[in-house]
Amino acid sequence: MTHTQPRTLIKDLATLPDGPVTVQGWVETVRDQKRVQFVILRDESGSAQLVNPVNEDTAETAATISGLMHGSFVTVRGDLKADERVKLGGLEVKVGELVVETVAKDSPIADDSSIDKRLDWRFLDLRRPEAQLIFRVQTTIEHAFRQHWIDEGFIEIHTPKLMATASESRAELFEVPYFETTAYLAQSPQLFKQMAQSAGFGRIFEIAPAFRADPSFTSRHATEFTSVDAEISWVESHEDVMAMHEQLLAKAVTAVIERHGEEIQQRFGIELQAPTLPFPRIPHAEVKRIVEEGGHTIERADGDLDPEAERRISAHVKETQGHDFVFVTEYPSTVRPFYHLRPEGREEVTNSYDLIYNGVEISTGAQREHRIERLREQALEKGMDVAELEEYLGFFEYGVPPHGGFGMGLARVVMLMLGLSSIRETTFLFRGPTRLHP
Amino acid sequence: MTHTQPRTLIKDLATLPDGPVTVQGWVETVRDQKRVQFVILRDESGSAQLVNPVNEDTAETAATISGLMHGSFVTVRGDLKADERVKLGGLEVKVGELVVETVAKDSPIADDSSIDKRLDWRFLDLRRPEAQLIFRVQTTIEHAFRQHWIDEGFIEIHTPKLMATASESRAELFEVPYFETTAYLAQSPQLFKQMAQSAGFGRIFEIAPAFRADPSFTSRHATEFTSVDAEISWVESHEDVMAMHEQLLAKAVTAVIERHGEEIQQRFGIELQAPTLPFPRIPHAEVKRIVEEGGHTIERADGDLDPEAERRISAHVKETQGHDFVFVTEYPSTVRPFYHLRPEGREEVTNSYDLIYNGVEISTGAQREHRIERLREQALEKGMDVAELEEYLGFFEYGVPPHGGFGMGLARVVMLMLGLSSIRETTFLFRGPTRLHP
Repeated sequence: MTHTQPRTLIKDLATLPDGPVTVQGWVETVRDQKRVQFVILRDESGSAQLVNPVNEDTAETAATISGLMHGSFVTVRGDLKADERVKLGGLEVKVGELVVETVAKDSPIADDSSIDKRLDWRFLDLRRPEAQLIFRVQTTIEHAFRQHWIDEGFIEIHTPKLMATASESRAELFEVPYFETTAYLAQSPQLFKQMAQSAGFGRIFEIAPAFRADPSFTSRHATEFTSVDAEISWVESHEDVMAMHEQLLAKAVTAVIERHGEEIQQRFGIELQAPTLPFPRIPHAEVKRIVEEGGHTIERADGDLDPEAERRISAHVKETQGHDFVFVTEYPSTVRPFYHLRPEGREEVTNSYDLIYNGVEISTGAQREHRIERLREQALEKGMDVAELEEYLGFFEYGVPPHGGFGMGLARVVMLMLGLSSIRETTFLFRGPTRLHP
Repeated sequence: MTHTQPRTLIKDLATLPDGPVTVQGWVETVRDQKRVQFVILRDESGSAQLVNPVNEDTAETAATISGLMHGSFVTVRGDLKADERVKLGGLEVKVGELVVETVAKDSPIADDSSIDKRLDWRFLDLRRPEAQLIFRVQTTIEHAFRQHWIDEGFIEIHTPKLMATASESRAELFEVPYFETTAYLAQSPQLFKQMAQSAGFGRIFEIAPAFRADPSFTSRHATEFTSVDAEISWVESHEDVMAMHEQLLAKAVTAVIERHGEEIQQRFGIELQAPTLPFPRIPHAEVKRIVEEGGHTIERADGDLDPEAERRISAHVKETQGHDFVFVTEYPSTVRPFYHLRPEGREEVTNSYDLIYNGVEISTGAQREHRIERLREQALEKGMDVAELEEYLGFFEYGVPPHGGFGMGLARVVMLMLGLSSIRETTFLFRGPTRLHP
């Protein structure tokens, strides 16, 4: 159809005077009464009531509305009228012309469908206003991150996801037949972020997919996820990384509150608060002590924290310091990869941290070991095949400044910010061991 | 070492008064004379001269400097002194303490090394100031794109790169063994961008990797590349897509001029000019006529433009309209995929375009066909296996608004903006049929 009026987003209707408007969106509900028909129309910005009084003049439109399937996309030209009796936004649009752009089949999912069924029909599931809010929040978080990095002179890089070698271990690695050879999908941009340090890029960031052939089915794991990564040169220790990390998150939460605070409260019942800086820091050994004194025995053989320990230390910090975030620092060398730097004279710990947010680990950060002799020693000590590590080690021979960085799961950050129970809700199209569709 | 002064970026030295400073970077050159030593130190922001008069007091530092390999990363504490006789920035730093953080081996590449050899040692090749500028320019371009999208209310999405089916054709597709089944690496986010339209997201963008098992070795092809993608609902035609597209590029070029214009002129000899809006538009048939009248016969069997035709129409537009960009519109249905919308009553053309920039195609955009019956017809007409397309077609049955979008190769944009000859120069770590390293 030709529009005599340009399209108005539904959220902007309230700013217009009464008169002709064009709105476009999908049909959420139809109330088809004898004398008057009501349609709730939703677009990406909100929903509004359409009204069509049934009489001789409107018979054709009335027949169309009677046959409208929920989910159909329509263009409506009509007359906007402010009316405070209308609960939905205090306005309605009296239908003049209604054109069905695409007819929809009946939706196979409902509000009470299981998460698995909803994921089967994710493109319909995402029409829920809560789902749309999730991805608007994610957009705001990412933009706040990037704005901070840009302001600080970081370079954005796009590291390859096809690699010739496994960067850390061959476990949980996807193999790709690649012409005459085999490639692997990057599990993290770790190696390439470090090459950017050797290249003298100084400070870099990347938000990109990462892949793990992880057979687990928890609420926190996916085979493909969006990894938020930064790496900076000339750190004195992991403290420099944590300082950057906490600023990023504080800015992101602040931006989310400004843009979406009210709607988050309304749809998720959560009142977000901007975190204070600095975030609390507790050494790993101290965390273990606190958790054990609280009655939880960590069963892991390697002594690392388990999910229950993460929940408990987070609750402890919330209770004692009122903070949603906590850096667990000084992880033992035994539970950290060979490339985490060990401070002079305290070889049993690493200059590394995990960041826990509302009870769940969202990130690991560290100062990296930049001295090749120590890297070799530490790789040997971990029982790694040094020959296989040569590509990783190679570029260290040509000079690398002291550096550090972090990797963080974006879907986890959004999940924990909005109090959701699974990253399946905060991933656009989730990928797991048994899910490649849609 | 413990710094008594915080690190100063070299570009900021000029803003400081004479006195103690700490600078950190890598050694570019050493001039080791009998009475005085000079070191050119480079960091991510620029380069500066260090000076060390050789005498009894400085003997230890002098020995260190004499043994310094180029490329070594060092921390220098010293005294800044403005001195207009120093060609490099009119200042120098008299070395107090010099600590070698990592010793470098001799670089295996030189300024005249072949591109292939430089790529073998890309982490060293990227230390060239020209290379660093390329990625700063890219960072500015991407940020300008995203800022425009954010200002216009777009949602950022992260579409999966692991797919169950080929979105368009099985040619040039990477296969990935995936638990009990097979996955494919996404050649473009096309299908998923369209799902976001069905989901009612309205307007979306993504900058992410895409994969093509393309065996060609041209200066414009890679097996993995960064794809810039946007898709918008409720378009009237491809004109709405082009209007968004040209605004994005105009803002990006303007931002690059503001941030890097002088340095681009200095390093690449190019004076960038912000493009005027609207960009020229020429229908495909008219382009063919102009090119053929100019003496070039297009040899392609399908009648589509070849690279020489792209160069010629671009030169023609530059000559006649002074513009670096041109939209070639109204592509014949025969050379476009089945999902490009064909305008009512003119089934022989499509509501689509290619965007050519300085002689090379950087993007294809189109209004997509959103009506499932027409999609089926057009897929059949193209001889496609409709059964295999069912996942693609499936979500159209549940309603999709009229929509369109584009995909654009980021490395090509940067290459053409800076007058470079290959995307190998504008890709952080290039991937091709015979290149998976480093």
